[in-house]
Amino acid sequence: MNSLNGTKVLVLGGRGFLGRNLIDLLLRDGASVRTFDRPTSSSADRCAFAGKVEEFEGNFIDGQGLPAALDKVDLVYHLISTTVPSGSNADPIGDVNSNLAGTLRLLKAMSTAGVNRLVYASSGGTVYGNPCVLPVPEWHALQPISSYGVVKVAIENYLHLHSELNGLKANVLRISNPYGMHQRRIGAQGVIATFLHKLMNSEPIEIWGDGSAVRDYIYVADVARALLLAGCNQKSGTFNIGSGIGHSLNEVLRILCEQTGLETEVRYLPHRKFDVTQTFLDIERAREELGWNPFYTLEEGCARFCQLMERAREPALL
Amino acid sequence: MNSLNGTKVLVLGGRGFLGRNLIDLLLRDGASVRTFDRPTSSSADRCAFAGKVEEFEGNFIDGQGLPAALDKVDLVYHLISTTVPSGSNADPIGDVNSNLAGTLRLLKAMSTAGVNRLVYASSGGTVYGNPCVLPVPEWHALQPISSYGVVKVAIENYLHLHSELNGLKANVLRISNPYGMHQRRIGAQGVIATFLHKLMNSEPIEIWGDGSAVRDYIYVADVARALLLAGCNQKSGTFNIGSGIGHSLNEVLRILCEQTGLETEVRYLPHRKFDVTQTFLDIERAREELGWNPFYTLEEGCARFCQLMERAREPALL
Repeated sequence: MNSLNGTKVLVLGGRGFLGRNLIDLLLRDGASVRTFDRPTSSSADRCAFAGKVEEFEGNFIDGQGLPAALDKVDLVYHLISTTVPSGSNADPIGDVNSNLAGTLRLLKAMSTAGVNRLVYASSGGTVYGNPCVLPVPEWHALQPISSYGVVKVAIENYLHLHSELNGLKANVLRISNPYGMHQRRIGAQGVIATFLHKLMNSEPIEIWGDGSAVRDYIYVADVARALLLAGCNQKSGTFNIGSGIGHSLNEVLRILCEQTGLETEVRYLPHRKFDVTQTFLDIERAREELGWNPFYTLEEGCARFCQLMERAREPALL
Repeated sequence: MNSLNGTKVLVLGGRGFLGRNLIDLLLRDGASVRTFDRPTSSSADRCAFAGKVEEFEGNFIDGQGLPAALDKVDLVYHLISTTVPSGSNADPIGDVNSNLAGTLRLLKAMSTAGVNRLVYASSGGTVYGNPCVLPVPEWHALQPISSYGVVKVAIENYLHLHSELNGLKANVLRISNPYGMHQRRIGAQGVIATFLHKLMNSEPIEIWGDGSAVRDYIYVADVARALLLAGCNQKSGTFNIGSGIGHSLNEVLRILCEQTGLETEVRYLPHRKFDVTQTFLDIERAREELGWNPFYTLEEGCARFCQLMERAREPALL
């Protein structure tokens, strides 16, 4: 079964970057979609899927509003993170209290509501730490060097425990570095969106380290398909989701400059210790067990992203 | 360097099972010992090392009292756990809020106090889950099936992170099933103490499952020496600490019956899902890197424990 047609799906973090891209796909697939997010004052946030999805608001951290959102749901996508890797080491207790304790409350609420299917967005870029084997397979030791990664591992372990003991069907996607539309442009959510935004606004680009750090960038449409397929999986599993190919920051910047025809000042800053130096993922397991393949190369994904960003800047045709 | 002579050592959980046995050894080794525990109303607890150690009281969970206890300390032993494996799945949020958040507060307080050496008592019986390789080496995947184990793994990961990023010298001992004097006899802290207590009091013994579950039992004096050597280690490391040999519950019971000459009724109860079925540890790394070896076989350790228990029951010679 490779479709969620007719399935009642709750997307936690539906207004976020991965959430919006997933919902686009879920709706086209015929799923009945419900979202759960923090209350927002942004009408753009509220109207993104107006009339097409049921929108619930509440507080993931203390669980307020979750029971109502879970009522009669078949499958939950947990795409919420209250932290980003670069900021998490400054407040690990906050990270634990929000993301880990929040997820434990979610699991309890799911159990109470009789919901036993979950897909969780883990992090292929942080759970392994500095890998000893490239591309990194799922069986690699988990030695994160950010609180963000430690908490993701703890959540994965609790999901595994519930899968072993309580019949939860849990699929964990260790997603590498996704990029594409709806990514928050300013902040730590992704270098490609940040670089593109700065290029388009002629702002200087800052790079931590010498730009040789290698990451596995994956276009968000490919991630959305992986999430959909993981939701269809009939058993529990843990899967790397990436392009399988590594690119340095300098390569990424070169591709974006070429595709936009733009240039800007680049400032190289000292390397940050909590940044992994080189990683890209072995994606054979997702290929074999989920029947998933990434469609977009980095060049193709960036081209598509640039095109969508430019279109978004054009004045609306009235 | 295999001695802590002259070192100022803080033992968190000094009045507990491992703590008391470790302190015996530390004092003989010439260390200057300080303890940190919950306030107690038991004069026996308070007097165990009266005059020989500095006793601090406070709250590990919220960190109250820790800064004073850490003042001018060289090395911390973290032997506190507020949960036991069998009870932890009933309240994982409580487990996270007490053990994990408490340890993060400890790390912060240590950093503030300029203390950068830590030995942590992790759990060789729970962090691996149901192992695929026996004896289990340290590189085995960590797939715990109890919240107790998940939290231990998360703490190990935070220690590794601080060791990589902040110069913490952290030694993690994955201790199997320790037994011996000062173990709480009633409750979940160890089957050998529980069996022995019940034999000596002619109470029925309850065994979860058919008694074939295999564990790695290690006499507490051997654990205390491993803790001492880990405190001397000049770099960070993670070590299995066990006998390296597996024994079933039925074998343990047979040994205790033979050594005491006692018998009692045995009741077999249903297997509990969160109990690992079979595990014993590969202890080569501790042998090579810490120069540690277990001295006691299960028979020898049980004999010693029985002897000490019987002596403790004799009326004091006045």
